[in-house]
Amino acid sequence: MNQPLHTQQLNPYAIQLCTLGRWIAQRQWLPAGSGLFSVRTSEHSALFTAAGKDKNELSPADLVAYDWAKPKEQDTATAIHQFLYQLKPQHKVVLQIHGLQATVFSRLIKADQHLFVGYELQQLVAATAAQRSCCPLAILDPQSTELTLQELHQRFERETLAYAFLIRGHGLYVWGDCIDSAKRHLETWQFLIACELERIKASALLN
Amino acid sequence: MNQPLHTQQLNPYAIQLCTLGRWIAQRQWLPAGSGLFSVRTSEHSALFTAAGKDKNELSPADLVAYDWAKPKEQDTATAIHQFLYQLKPQHKVVLQIHGLQATVFSRLIKADQHLFVGYELQQLVAATAAQRSCCPLAILDPQSTELTLQELHQRFERETLAYAFLIRGHGLYVWGDCIDSAKRHLETWQFLIACELERIKASALLN
Amino acid sequence: MNQPLHTQQLNPYAIQLCTLGRWIAQRQWLPAGSGLFSVRTSEHSALFTAAGKDKNELSPADLVAYDWAKPKEQDTATAIHQFLYQLKPQHKVVLQIHGLQATVFSRLIKADQHLFVGYELQQLVAATAAQRSCCPLAILDPQSTELTLQELHQRFERETLAYAFLIRGHGLYVWGDCIDSAKRHLETWQFLIACELERIKASALLN
Amino acid sequence: MNQPLHTQQLNPYAIQLCTLGRWIAQRQWLPAGSGLFSVRTSEHSALFTAAGKDKNELSPADLVAYDWAKPKEQDTATAIHQFLYQLKPQHKVVLQIHGLQATVFSRLIKADQHLFVGYELQQLVAATAAQRSCCPLAILDPQSTELTLQELHQRFERETLAYAFLIRGHGLYVWGDCIDSAKRHLETWQFLIACELERIKASALLN
Repeated sequence: MNQPLHTQQLNPYAIQLCTLGRWIAQRQWLPAGSGLFSVRTSEHSALFTAAGKDKNELSPADLVAYDWAKPKEQDTATAIHQFLYQLKPQHKVVLQIHGLQATVFSRLIKADQHLFVGYELQQLVAATAAQRSCCPLAILDPQSTELTLQELHQRFERETLAYAFLIRGHGLYVWGDCIDSAKRHLETWQFLIACELERIKASALLN
Repeated sequence: MNQPLHTQQLNPYAIQLCTLGRWIAQRQWLPAGSGLFSVRTSEHSALFTAAGKDKNELSPADLVAYDWAKPKEQDTATAIHQFLYQLKPQHKVVLQIHGLQATVFSRLIKADQHLFVGYELQQLVAATAAQRSCCPLAILDPQSTELTLQELHQRFERETLAYAFLIRGHGLYVWGDCIDSAKRHLETWQFLIACELERIKASALLN
Repeated sequence: MNQPLHTQQLNPYAIQLCTLGRWIAQRQWLPAGSGLFSVRTSEHSALFTAAGKDKNELSPADLVAYDWAKPKEQDTATAIHQFLYQLKPQHKVVLQIHGLQATVFSRLIKADQHLFVGYELQQLVAATAAQRSCCPLAILDPQSTELTLQELHQRFERETLAYAFLIRGHGLYVWGDCIDSAKRHLETWQFLIACELERIKASALLN
Repeated sequence: MNQPLHTQQLNPYAIQLCTLGRWIAQRQWLPAGSGLFSVRTSEHSALFTAAGKDKNELSPADLVAYDWAKPKEQDTATAIHQFLYQLKPQHKVVLQIHGLQATVFSRLIKADQHLFVGYELQQLVAATAAQRSCCPLAILDPQSTELTLQELHQRFERETLAYAFLIRGHGLYVWGDCIDSAKRHLETWQFLIACELERIKASALLN
């Protein structure tokens, strides 16, 4: 009764992030407690899921506040989340997952991006009008945190990313300006990647 | 208590369509709120699901009435539903879905139709006696609304469709003379398409 | 209150068959109400599921008694069930399903049987000691009821079947001496067929 | 009320093992009651799941105590569990499962091990620092119990195994120093194996 109350338990964003986390875990896109989710709480802070936490059991008390005005040691995934929040104030939610198809696709494609063409659902992730007909998904090689952030910086300078990128064998990152759009981007990219992986395999057999 | 009552909430067709919608969403054939369902309510009107609505949470209050005696701006999917209702009075329910196998299959097959042969379950979608042994599935390219309707008109002139067609990368359309038959046609076509995709791939490897 | 009581509702075999039917339907091996299940009730009678019934909603009242001492018009699937009951008194339960992998496998293999070798779980369906190391699965072409029964007769004369056979594109039949053994044979064969389909495809790619 | 109380019902390890068993069964990695789980209860004893038990319905009363100070007839799977407990006191939980991908993978790879490279999640099963970048999965051929134990002995002499090995067509074995680590190793290996199987197939098509 008299336990200290986690402030996150009253935070509606924290509650929504946990609900989304459990939904994602049920899709089995987070094997063995992998994946990292966060939600922005101010210009320079966000709530993060704890490392290794089984997202099927995620509750607001499992979220950890992080303030980048007070820097501390970070792993690469956390640094990427922070980078995305600092890049644009509209970035409110960031999700990293380890779905099977996204993982295999990221290893299979050798180029530094893949162009998605011919799917109606591209319109749900298109960040520009042109991406509705030809939508790029950036693919990076895993590197040190510093080199990964440099590479991301260059990618975003060069073009508008369609709310997602892959790191080969290291997961799919998506983001959005609210919980619902991040979820929509995640579900759409998982669908597009799974379709494209299957289409590429079948096309190689038949053509 | 005193909230205005949605008339759809008393409409048994609306309730059945929502039940079917939630069943379909649980199969994951509607990624990111995609898909469009409708049920005829009169000679010239139908109830439609709202665009982008997550069908896992579909309730009668989410359906939108549309009367084609009072034309208004339409997207292609809505126009196709209207076309099917106007084609034959027996068409009572129309469903569009974005299943992974149907999407990949529609991209893989280059011809304007595919013939299904050798599956016992063809009998569940055969619109003619001949289709029990050889059942065609029409495949259209995505085009403007106007050209799509012209193309559909020509297809229906040429032959009886087996309660379904595909638009490449833009989903599977099925219909029926009641909720149950539309559901049966959907489930059967999803099964036949998934089998045929797998059979084609495996045959290409072994033969 | 005063509705006539279905005698099947008091039949423990009927209740067990319905429980098994719902379990199978949840695995999605019975698309669009397909499949046929039966349980023996005497030397010359059995209870059958009604044609087209969605097995997710199966209850004892949906079962139909059939007595082969009083012959009537039958479809091929029902005739096959009767054949199996008449073949041996130990045959107490017969199941026909339309799983995706079994359907594709039956179309892919051109021979009249396939030999399963190297799976530990073969021991769960082996009808003889030799089948533990090399277990045949018979595959028949779809034919008229009469020719199908003749063919089955010859197959059973020639060898002991491992509690199952396939009819190309027309489903997997399994049987057992009780509900539990029929279920175990079904689940094991579905697993073995799915493994073998995947193994054959992958081997063709790599070797 | 006065039924004899199973001592296992009060054993927290037994309760945890049953909870894990039901979780694994729901993933469909244990077809037809296959698989064997155990938890160490002392230096020379463990609780085992009963042969053929459907793990969806596992309860502590279904576990069987086995003490290797009092040797008795064993099947190969049980002997392997005992071997692992005797090898190192840190081995507290052993799991054997029959997942489809693990079974196919074990048959497809002809070498006596497979090296996993390039997956971030390797870090969750790495037993040494080097395995984070290159993680071997040992694959044994099925043999008599005696030869299998000799072979395992040699493998463990030669190198540190990454908490898992495969026996071709006879399942995946994983272990850990507690229920949670055994579960994490199982889930991670299932993911890595499923990714690698898909990656190998797709690579063979495209390269």
